Amino acid sequence: MTTQDDNMLGRARVTDTPELSAYYAELADREAGALWTVANEIEPWYPQPKSVPTLWRYAELRPLVRKALDLVKADDAGRRVVMLVNPGRRDVSAAAGLLYTGLQIMGPGESMTAHRHQAAALRFVLEGTGAWTIVDGEKLRVGARDFAITPNGTWHEHGNESDDTPVIWQDGLDIPLVNALDAGFYEVHPDVYQVPGKVVNSSVLTYGGNLVPYGVERWTRPYSPLLAWPWEPTYQALLDLAKASEGSPYDGLIMEYTNPATGGSVMPTMGAHIQLLRAGQATKAHRHTGSVVYTAAKGHGVSIVAGQRFEWHEGDVFAVPAWAWHEHANLDQGEDAVLFSFDDFPVMRSLGFFREEAYVDNDGHQPTPAG
Amino acid sequence: MTTQDDNMLGRARVTDTPELSAYYAELADREAGALWTVANEIEPWYPQPKSVPTLWRYAELRPLVRKALDLVKADDAGRRVVMLVNPGRRDVSAAAGLLYTGLQIMGPGESMTAHRHQAAALRFVLEGTGAWTIVDGEKLRVGARDFAITPNGTWHEHGNESDDTPVIWQDGLDIPLVNALDAGFYEVHPDVYQVPGKVVNSSVLTYGGNLVPYGVERWTRPYSPLLAWPWEPTYQALLDLAKASEGSPYDGLIMEYTNPATGGSVMPTMGAHIQLLRAGQATKAHRHTGSVVYTAAKGHGVSIVAGQRFEWHEGDVFAVPAWAWHEHANLDQGEDAVLFSFDDFPVMRSLGFFREEAYVDNDGHQPTPAG
Amino acid sequence: MTTQDDNMLGRARVTDTPELSAYYAELADREAGALWTVANEIEPWYPQPKSVPTLWRYAELRPLVRKALDLVKADDAGRRVVMLVNPGRRDVSAAAGLLYTGLQIMGPGESMTAHRHQAAALRFVLEGTGAWTIVDGEKLRVGARDFAITPNGTWHEHGNESDDTPVIWQDGLDIPLVNALDAGFYEVHPDVYQVPGKVVNSSVLTYGGNLVPYGVERWTRPYSPLLAWPWEPTYQALLDLAKASEGSPYDGLIMEYTNPATGGSVMPTMGAHIQLLRAGQATKAHRHTGSVVYTAAKGHGVSIVAGQRFEWHEGDVFAVPAWAWHEHANLDQGEDAVLFSFDDFPVMRSLGFFREEAYVDNDGHQPTPAG
Amino acid sequence: MTTQDDNMLGRARVTDTPELSAYYAELADREAGALWTVANEIEPWYPQPKSVPTLWRYAELRPLVRKALDLVKADDAGRRVVMLVNPGRRDVSAAAGLLYTGLQIMGPGESMTAHRHQAAALRFVLEGTGAWTIVDGEKLRVGARDFAITPNGTWHEHGNESDDTPVIWQDGLDIPLVNALDAGFYEVHPDVYQVPGKVVNSSVLTYGGNLVPYGVERWTRPYSPLLAWPWEPTYQALLDLAKASEGSPYDGLIMEYTNPATGGSVMPTMGAHIQLLRAGQATKAHRHTGSVVYTAAKGHGVSIVAGQRFEWHEGDVFAVPAWAWHEHANLDQGEDAVLFSFDDFPVMRSLGFFREEAYVDNDGHQPTPAG
Repeated sequence: MTTQDDNMLGRARVTDTPELSAYYAELADREAGALWTVANEIEPWYPQPKSVPTLWRYAELRPLVRKALDLVKADDAGRRVVMLVNPGRRDVSAAAGLLYTGLQIMGPGESMTAHRHQAAALRFVLEGTGAWTIVDGEKLRVGARDFAITPNGTWHEHGNESDDTPVIWQDGLDIPLVNALDAGFYEVHPDVYQVPGKVVNSSVLTYGGNLVPYGVERWTRPYSPLLAWPWEPTYQALLDLAKASEGSPYDGLIMEYTNPATGGSVMPTMGAHIQLLRAGQATKAHRHTGSVVYTAAKGHGVSIVAGQRFEWHEGDVFAVPAWAWHEHANLDQGEDAVLFSFDDFPVMRSLGFFREEAYVDNDGHQPTPAG
Repeated sequence: MTTQDDNMLGRARVTDTPELSAYYAELADREAGALWTVANEIEPWYPQPKSVPTLWRYAELRPLVRKALDLVKADDAGRRVVMLVNPGRRDVSAAAGLLYTGLQIMGPGESMTAHRHQAAALRFVLEGTGAWTIVDGEKLRVGARDFAITPNGTWHEHGNESDDTPVIWQDGLDIPLVNALDAGFYEVHPDVYQVPGKVVNSSVLTYGGNLVPYGVERWTRPYSPLLAWPWEPTYQALLDLAKASEGSPYDGLIMEYTNPATGGSVMPTMGAHIQLLRAGQATKAHRHTGSVVYTAAKGHGVSIVAGQRFEWHEGDVFAVPAWAWHEHANLDQGEDAVLFSFDDFPVMRSLGFFREEAYVDNDGHQPTPAG
Repeated sequence: MTTQDDNMLGRARVTDTPELSAYYAELADREAGALWTVANEIEPWYPQPKSVPTLWRYAELRPLVRKALDLVKADDAGRRVVMLVNPGRRDVSAAAGLLYTGLQIMGPGESMTAHRHQAAALRFVLEGTGAWTIVDGEKLRVGARDFAITPNGTWHEHGNESDDTPVIWQDGLDIPLVNALDAGFYEVHPDVYQVPGKVVNSSVLTYGGNLVPYGVERWTRPYSPLLAWPWEPTYQALLDLAKASEGSPYDGLIMEYTNPATGGSVMPTMGAHIQLLRAGQATKAHRHTGSVVYTAAKGHGVSIVAGQRFEWHEGDVFAVPAWAWHEHANLDQGEDAVLFSFDDFPVMRSLGFFREEAYVDNDGHQPTPAG
Repeated sequence: MTTQDDNMLGRARVTDTPELSAYYAELADREAGALWTVANEIEPWYPQPKSVPTLWRYAELRPLVRKALDLVKADDAGRRVVMLVNPGRRDVSAAAGLLYTGLQIMGPGESMTAHRHQAAALRFVLEGTGAWTIVDGEKLRVGARDFAITPNGTWHEHGNESDDTPVIWQDGLDIPLVNALDAGFYEVHPDVYQVPGKVVNSSVLTYGGNLVPYGVERWTRPYSPLLAWPWEPTYQALLDLAKASEGSPYDGLIMEYTNPATGGSVMPTMGAHIQLLRAGQATKAHRHTGSVVYTAAKGHGVSIVAGQRFEWHEGDVFAVPAWAWHEHANLDQGEDAVLFSFDDFPVMRSLGFFREEAYVDNDGHQPTPAG
């Protein structure tokens, strides 16, 4: 590691003078500026995210989410969603980095209108049994802890066919990324609602096993043809992996939801992972570029993020900004714990921005936060 | 379709003369020749495979395979295998095109020595319960109708840990292809036997679900990290697909065994497929480049190959040469039937040789063979 | 095109009430918010870039750039660069979208210190003959209209070996993109200066022709091994293309600077193009996602960007924001004109964000701007 | 290197007995055989090509090639070609491995008929100035030492527009590979002759520089859009490379003719290289899988192939079988020498068959052949 001091040869260190101030004004008049006045700020030694580590407790938010059912009509709100907004990213409605997340509620028997947008979306179901979504004409039924995607540009709409219970699921979208890149488009479905095909969960039946169908048109879109990953086989995959592997020192037994047509991420802008912490397991700290939004899917644990201690229970959501040290522990000595997460790693990799670093001091653990 | 007549402008049609004969002799003296003497033969209008459609009946071969147990010692034979040799390809020991296949038997408690070779291998288990193979240190246990691979260059050895029953499995290899391309290498393992890792079926536990492990070194080899596909989830995948899809008009419900790291074929030189014919289903005929070796995995049916009728029962093997018309039918009106197959389609695709054509006359069916 | 009216079913249209205001406050207390309060803004019907069409005239900026030579020492400034700052993007020092550009001047005999950063850089030389850059140990000499790259993570430093004349070149960087994605790193070279290899323009000698060297280690980095594209063969390529092609209706004869190892863009985050407008040629208007910074490399013309008329001469720079209609015309009836440009198209393509649309009315031309 | 002795554990070493002979006969009756009777032969320790090192002298063949002009009419022969036939591969008309080569002659004013085939073809011009070829409607004019391709499936025809001089060029095709894989198709053009587009050498004008045209439809075919590589820039590329690089110890300064759209080989089944040996340079020996056909393009040298000494002059052709040691030397102390070659390396790489080994003894040189 080289020295990181702005007062050194190789960094900008020009002192203001009246002459320079006049010059800067002259430049400003021509929509120009002097690089050296901002160079150290826009070329930092290491990432300086505006996002801060943040925890949202489901126990606190759930009543507020349910309240939305009474306060606004679905058709007026478009979707009834409580966004989780990072204190450092209120300007772009992001939870971490350029990732948006929110908790969406649908009352029994409700259905939303159909639309599509440049932003990609994903869902992780927190509670309720009647949830469905239609993605480009395929109807998917999803239950608790199921994961589903709505890739960029696909027509979609949601609903709840339960008779008596609301559904709450977590939405993850790349809206802030899309807007940062000036690429947002939105369309309301010309018929307001889609007519789904007859077979429910068709892509799960088709691509949900370990083989891919042959003799159909080759899949060429940039996202997964498999649109939903039910919880049961996902959890089984973690249990199987636990028999064969020690797992990652930083993440325990971690797997990526995968596009079966490529072996890569489910969508080009967002990846999603599921990780199991064995009873009592505490991982070591590392940091990487890329932002992550975690959801406690099962169990009870704690994550230390940039020195802050976030104790979590099922349904809690927390944000890990880019380049923040983080480590996880399962606080239950008898049961495993599972974290779901989504991230912008596919973007980091496509653009050549991925970097990772292990925390080496103190046996790999950040100093215990006070309190 | 243009005319296909060798006596036309655009084809070679030089008549022999004494002068030309003398010229040809002069050329031959210099390791040369006149293209026009062979042009029509080496540039045929369409493929002219030496392989012929062939059926091998398991009921006939099984006693001969079992006889090998008594006739030769495993250590002397290397492997006790009855090769299935296409009448047109005896020179290269191929079953179809440049694909080799054989029936291997291992007695109770036997194990073979370890080696590796440039040729890639695959296995489809026909009978017996104690079969195992070790591939680059991973021990795999395989039972009836399981599929497993031994990619090009991996150390491997096999055995049977049953107390009382022999195992018979089908080997598929690309030996004739490797030899045609002058690329064969072979090595005996320096320790004669491998010491396997502790976890059996480790790759199935790791890659056998619908997610891929994350945080391990990225898989960069040209073949699947998943080495075995047990029958049960494979058959379930076919049943699931049957709920969501009509399937292919030529192949019924057909899926490809897939490299989970790429979504592509399991190995760069051989692909493998499994296909289900619904009770009573009869497919239409098509033809394509690429050679295929089929094995009846379940049920009872018939395939018409280049006009020849091959009725098959479980364990029967048949060869479909390149560009031969073929269609399949399940002769059972109450049960589904399943065909396993392996092929050289990955080669066809890599080299840009894949072509396919539907049989259009007679509602898609070849004329019924006499008798 | 569906209706684009925010007061319709499918958009958020909730009216404020005292009850809702209380609810919003409650959400804000928990770092949360109601999606429907921002939904229409963050999910716009089409891109709403903050960048605005902008022209920077070289004749105006050049004197200010030269003034920097006297005002600040190279070693204090790091690099003496006048940034061109889009009026809508002053917060992130961008010229268009997330692209930065600036005019850098180096006095005779000067050399800058070596550093590397996550941001990628490119150069287009505007004037002067002694410019050089060292990229990962390779010294490149560049003259007027030459194009060169400094890919993400490569050590680099610049200088001017002329005895008497300053060099001015245009820098293009993806700094705003890197910062938007929280991925910025910066390092000063441990030895302050690199020691270049003996062969100047080594990558041009090696990869500058139409063949690639064989028998060297395979190139696996995500950017071009060719680091500079001298003007002369580049211009010749345009002239050759003009003999064989009509060119694009929107861009005239346009070519992409290309990574010879992949046929793709020179770097994963920025592409660069060069386009020739025949004498008197006027192209039709189109728009696309992705932001572009153009530089007039040769000749005299006009571009209409979102209805604004920018007349340009050599050295002028102008910004075309994402989704802005734009068309170009060569105002000289006897000479060709050439535009250099760089863009974020590689990002648009990697992330699946690329869209393009032709202007269909008025024979493809935007209404003539008043005045 | 492990022992390579067929009389060891791990190889087949079954002794014939009357009982076994009877068994083998029984197997043969059922189109079957015992693997152990052929295992050591079909799974050799290392490649056992049927091809043998062979040199064809242009001085000897040229008169015979010219004689063909008088002996057969172009329209009767299809093409007037003297094939170079490897003594070990007469059965498949190959020069080395599965590669075919021949010397084609066209008289002044002649033109051949148009056809297309699954086999891919390439040309290297040996003499004459009026040669042309039309490939999928593009007319190419080619002169001495120019290289051109006719990819798999493209319509093509050739001719000679000189008034007085015949053209001789070398054809290279993958006919034996296509036939080995049962993938040969052939069609005569429905109009017998193509009508070319107006621009000659259009692909050279379009793709012959260091940039690729933008704004045209993306190139998705599996072969190079650039169809010809004139000698002059090719030779210049070698001279440039010589300034920047030591070159390969085995091949001198060697470059691959490259698909500008991918950076890869020009066609999926055949690659082509050009290599310069500096005055007096002698390379070291190596061997690799893959077969190569070399042509002396310039100068005078010697190659030692599997211990055989082949002294070559311009126009001579020689075959290097797979896994044969080979090294080259320029026998001229004052002038450089250039070898053109084509090979099946793309096949080796696609199928995972490529291996390479340096000759380590005797300072890297094979023992001097006697005589």
